[in-house]
Amino acid sequence: MTDSWVNSAERIGADLHVELAGSGSRRAALIHALRAAVQDGRLAPGTRLPPYRSLAADLGLARNTVADAYAELVAEGWLTARQGSGTRVAPRAEPPRPARVPKKVPRRAAAPAHNLMQGQPDAGSFPRGAWLSAARRALNTAPNEAFGPGDPQGRIELRRALAGYLARVRGVRTTPDRIVICSGFAHALRLLFGGQVLRGPLAVESYGLPFHRSLLAEAGVRTVPIGLDEQGARVAELMEGREGEVQEAREAARAALKDVRAVLLTPAHQFPTGGPLHPERRAAVVDWARARGRVILEDDYDGEFRYDREPVGAVQGLDPERVVYLGSVSKSLSPAVRLGWMVLPEQLVDPVLAAKGQREAWASVLDQLTLAELIESGGYDRHVRRMRQRYRARRDQLLAALDEHAPHITAAGIAAGLHAVLRLPPGTERAVLKATAWQGIALDGLAPYRHPDATMPGQDGLVVGYATPPDHAYQAALEALCRALPPAP
Amino acid sequence: MTDSWVNSAERIGADLHVELAGSGSRRAALIHALRAAVQDGRLAPGTRLPPYRSLAADLGLARNTVADAYAELVAEGWLTARQGSGTRVAPRAEPPRPARVPKKVPRRAAAPAHNLMQGQPDAGSFPRGAWLSAARRALNTAPNEAFGPGDPQGRIELRRALAGYLARVRGVRTTPDRIVICSGFAHALRLLFGGQVLRGPLAVESYGLPFHRSLLAEAGVRTVPIGLDEQGARVAELMEGREGEVQEAREAARAALKDVRAVLLTPAHQFPTGGPLHPERRAAVVDWARARGRVILEDDYDGEFRYDREPVGAVQGLDPERVVYLGSVSKSLSPAVRLGWMVLPEQLVDPVLAAKGQREAWASVLDQLTLAELIESGGYDRHVRRMRQRYRARRDQLLAALDEHAPHITAAGIAAGLHAVLRLPPGTERAVLKATAWQGIALDGLAPYRHPDATMPGQDGLVVGYATPPDHAYQAALEALCRALPPAP
Repeated sequence: MTDSWVNSAERIGADLHVELAGSGSRRAALIHALRAAVQDGRLAPGTRLPPYRSLAADLGLARNTVADAYAELVAEGWLTARQGSGTRVAPRAEPPRPARVPKKVPRRAAAPAHNLMQGQPDAGSFPRGAWLSAARRALNTAPNEAFGPGDPQGRIELRRALAGYLARVRGVRTTPDRIVICSGFAHALRLLFGGQVLRGPLAVESYGLPFHRSLLAEAGVRTVPIGLDEQGARVAELMEGREGEVQEAREAARAALKDVRAVLLTPAHQFPTGGPLHPERRAAVVDWARARGRVILEDDYDGEFRYDREPVGAVQGLDPERVVYLGSVSKSLSPAVRLGWMVLPEQLVDPVLAAKGQREAWASVLDQLTLAELIESGGYDRHVRRMRQRYRARRDQLLAALDEHAPHITAAGIAAGLHAVLRLPPGTERAVLKATAWQGIALDGLAPYRHPDATMPGQDGLVVGYATPPDHAYQAALEALCRALPPAP
Repeated sequence: MTDSWVNSAERIGADLHVELAGSGSRRAALIHALRAAVQDGRLAPGTRLPPYRSLAADLGLARNTVADAYAELVAEGWLTARQGSGTRVAPRAEPPRPARVPKKVPRRAAAPAHNLMQGQPDAGSFPRGAWLSAARRALNTAPNEAFGPGDPQGRIELRRALAGYLARVRGVRTTPDRIVICSGFAHALRLLFGGQVLRGPLAVESYGLPFHRSLLAEAGVRTVPIGLDEQGARVAELMEGREGEVQEAREAARAALKDVRAVLLTPAHQFPTGGPLHPERRAAVVDWARARGRVILEDDYDGEFRYDREPVGAVQGLDPERVVYLGSVSKSLSPAVRLGWMVLPEQLVDPVLAAKGQREAWASVLDQLTLAELIESGGYDRHVRRMRQRYRARRDQLLAALDEHAPHITAAGIAAGLHAVLRLPPGTERAVLKATAWQGIALDGLAPYRHPDATMPGQDGLVVGYATPPDHAYQAALEALCRALPPAP
């Protein structure tokens, strides 16, 4: 097998579907069929036709019949024949068929000048070389059965690599047989709730990703928000109902929370508002889950990107039998690699596998083998470490710009992750978003992240993603952002 | 970036999660934390610890503090230090945690000696070299945005390659914007029916894959079977009701079929019983769909593997506005590559994309880019052609074995695909399956493929998959099969 670039002259169509209609001359029928295929665009201009001998064998014709037909169509101008390049469909001026006119209007009239949307890692930093090396090693050493039907739980190579990696880096306690591979966080939620493994109502943080809420709503799961403060989610509300409400509302909220079967948390870095869950609250929510027989869903969406020295391990390590730990490579590598994982309490492994079913295996086996090799070889660690340095520098640049141009604005959630929240004076978020739009900046305010039933006071802020802009454009984006911020009071 | 094998000594843990508890000596706290991590198995035997300097920087400690802690743990026997190999977790005799005891019993008590199950291509023939070459070219030339959030419709590179390929090889008429990439046939069915793009009842062939029926049943779709004969599906039943039934049953069936909104067919090679759909019936079903505003779902599951000279193009080519064409690489390459596609009538494109949603993108982008490159470079054609020769030889070997040992047994569906159906005398299927099991052969009879509501007379037969056995085992499998067949009457 050569690895060199395939010469374009070799990009041949080895196979060709031709139907020879009628009972007349085979030569005429072949000419008719080929002409029709070129006319209606099935054979695109430039397509190389199979050699005489191979088409003749396929169709059960004499080689001369095919040669004659080709010659006729060259004479008619439908095909071209050139020494060394074979017979090809002739170029034409007009396109073969009009393309479909898209009905949807583009989401933005014009692309924004600056992209500070949260949620994506730096697409330009995907470790192409390391991935390809890992793919080569993985594919060359994989057993043949890897290319067979596959295990819906995921390849054992990847589950082994993850068990070791998550224990070492996130303090997760697991064995490979507690891990189920899926195609990402959304797929995990669909399996857990759509597959009837867990049931609602589900307690969620008052601020979170609207996409997750709508996905849960589609699965028929009611979500009940709990409050947030500087120590993270107010998990005491699970036991005691919400604080700071009038008596009647408090009673209703307490009743709703009493029915809750599970709680979805972002303990390492509350999404999107900021900090880690306080150690006492981590212990408290585990106690609650144990006492009531409930489940904690731990969304460890950016657990690998911490910039300060305070380690924040996974809550899962406190009680592997009460926590479903969820992670993916969407932030650490790329959302283009559709891989995520669940680390499950023992009693949930079989129900999740039943929900997956014998034929469910969305995640690419080739990607699974490659990621396993990337982790085992240390390449994944090296990439994460490199990206952590890069994102930390991005964050520092944001903080320096604020320090210089808007020192009165506080940035929250800066110890980790790929975004920060700039706190705004109450009631100013919409006006500031108009100003940022005017500056050509794409970014979110906090409002869309707020749960519609949340009773805690709303917060005003900007969610600033700093991972995606290219280096040369980042400083200009920050300056535009600072120009849009409200002046000091 | 080097492509050479990574030396095992370099498989280091660059990252380590350690929590330093208490307010006492940092050295003592670090020793305690590391010892605990080794004890409870989070740090597995042989794991390499980070260098002093890097752990010290991460934890904000003096380098000497880390060096002292490592030295203490080496002295205690928890770690080992060797020149050139760094500091590692010491090997231990007993495993860190008992593995989960699987609750499920294995599906078969003993692996069968011969595997003639249908449904899988030859796992040993996956074109590893060609795939890796294509992956290298694809990843090295992909734009950065390919590693961003991605288009739920699928990469344009792949949709372009497929539009050309399917036109050339299968006679499909489409443009890239009519194609939606998914992770396989099952995913396509889920999107079409779970996503409310199409509604039931759905007419299906009386014999088909039970998995598809159960998937449709889960989505709440009622399936109504239509009959089969030697010309394929009796599509006239869609217009006229079923033939050969008593008056009352015929009326009921006619009523059920009148409500049918779509029909799912395997026109190239009826699955599993055999032949292609007769040309007149192809035209008739398209006429029905046009006249009634119905949709044809064309499952082209093995359209590339035809061994005779009669070309059977896709029904989609007859009317792209009435046919949803469905294909995948599960048979042509491997089910480990989770890629399939839908070619849609224009009016269904937006509904399918709405069902997918903005964040749905199960199919690996890396695999999509690689497959596009494999098709464009001609590597996919070469692989299909090679496999066609291989499977044809397998089929010929089966026919030769039957000819020699059981000339009274007819093989059907032999002009295409990866399996054949051996016709059995009425009422003998169960007895013959006992005989094949006794011979250590894994294979299916026709019974599980029959729709439970089918009214056509049942057929007895064996579904013999000939793609999967390794070369050295195939002849023995055929001989065992022939020993299990009923003797000539």
